[in-house]
Amino acid sequence: MFASIPNFKDFWSEWDTNRKLECLRLLNEIVCEFDKLLSKPKFSSVEKIKTVGSTYMAAAGLNETETDYDDDVYLEKQSHGKFNNNLRIGNTAFRNANVMIEFALAMSQILDGLNRDSFQNFELRIGMSVGPLVAGVIGAQKPQYDIWGNTVNLASRMDTHGEPRKIHATTDMGNILRAGGYRVQSRGKIRVKGVKEPMETFLIEVDSKRNSSVSGEQTNNHNNNNNCHHSTL
Amino acid sequence: MFASIPNFKDFWSEWDTNRKLECLRLLNEIVCEFDKLLSKPKFSSVEKIKTVGSTYMAAAGLNETETDYDDDVYLEKQSHGKFNNNLRIGNTAFRNANVMIEFALAMSQILDGLNRDSFQNFELRIGMSVGPLVAGVIGAQKPQYDIWGNTVNLASRMDTHGEPRKIHATTDMGNILRAGGYRVQSRGKIRVKGVKEPMETFLIEVDSKRNSSVSGEQTNNHNNNNNCHHSTL
Repeated sequence: MFASIPNFKDFWSEWDTNRKLECLRLLNEIVCEFDKLLSKPKFSSVEKIKTVGSTYMAAAGLNETETDYDDDVYLEKQSHGKFNNNLRIGNTAFRNANVMIEFALAMSQILDGLNRDSFQNFELRIGMSVGPLVAGVIGAQKPQYDIWGNTVNLASRMDTHGEPRKIHATTDMGNILRAGGYRVQSRGKIRVKGVKEPMETFLIEVDSKRNSSVSGEQTNNHNNNNNCHHSTL
Repeated sequence: MFASIPNFKDFWSEWDTNRKLECLRLLNEIVCEFDKLLSKPKFSSVEKIKTVGSTYMAAAGLNETETDYDDDVYLEKQSHGKFNNNLRIGNTAFRNANVMIEFALAMSQILDGLNRDSFQNFELRIGMSVGPLVAGVIGAQKPQYDIWGNTVNLASRMDTHGEPRKIHATTDMGNILRAGGYRVQSRGKIRVKGVKEPMETFLIEVDSKRNSSVSGEQTNNHNNNNNCHHSTL
């Protein structure tokens, strides 16, 4: 997931150079409030990757092995190629997608609260995708855990091509969410840099979601050494 | 300074998903070799900020106070508005610009060596600017020291608008380098996003620079609490 605050840039440019530090203090407050969500048990599977400017990058399911996804294949076979809500709810991909959506909604609520306190009008624009990626630590000085791959690039592009107060999801992510009972709105096929064919993407309103029956709480937390993951971000 | 390896992307996309980890290992080796430069005494004023993908971000002079630049103003007045090599060499702005150039050249030499060992053809494309910026630490989870401001944006854009094996510098940075005796090549005026008027930028060849008489070695390392800096990156 890439969650950015596009109108933070306007706020930033309104201030003189010697007042920029105050803008940063507000950004720090926002990011620290988002960070607090990570300690909630329901978001135990969410990993913050980093912030880049006013963009918050996080992923769910990074600690899962590929065998965790075998259940998904079994369930998909059971449903004979059709999406079946009962069967798919509870599978790994949906569980991660759901927790990521819940996290984005919680971020949005936090931002609304901070807006009221600081008389601002910041809005979140969120991009999400699901799929395999590579994770690792780069560098000797200031080493940083990061993630790479097409799934990561797609999530970033869903953010940049997205709309304020909406979650913009890839085809795969949208299908998983729809199968799980989320109200997703097709945006039709759009051209995305790095993808040959135009792809169908989906928008999820931040304000009008169904109350998920799946809590997204996860107790399995494998500490494996396998750096190849299939994750939701 | 933003130093990126544009053709790392081609290398990355040549490999299957399950071989991406090997690409990352090579990137890690490159970044770790760049990191080793930071421990050299001549680069003691260089601060690595972070890597973003295959882009290495660093700055010089972050620990200097604004009063360190008073000498610059005095020297500029002495030279009656004209650039005067003798007077300007040794001033703070040039010293930082020079050390940043030396750092970029050292990075380039390291990459050439790694290319020979790994039969690759990676090239550095470098963007630089000079000016005021804001620095600070953002976030409670995975807090990261970072820098912000127009100077930072300009350096990044010099990189993206640059050419392989060349350093692309802003007007101010180019003037400082030229005054210090560097052979800089004007690229004419180009339009840069975020800057109203087209700006003259300069290219410095990575392979054919003069041997600087200024070592760039710095012994003053103020640990001040002032987070507003005038830096070279």
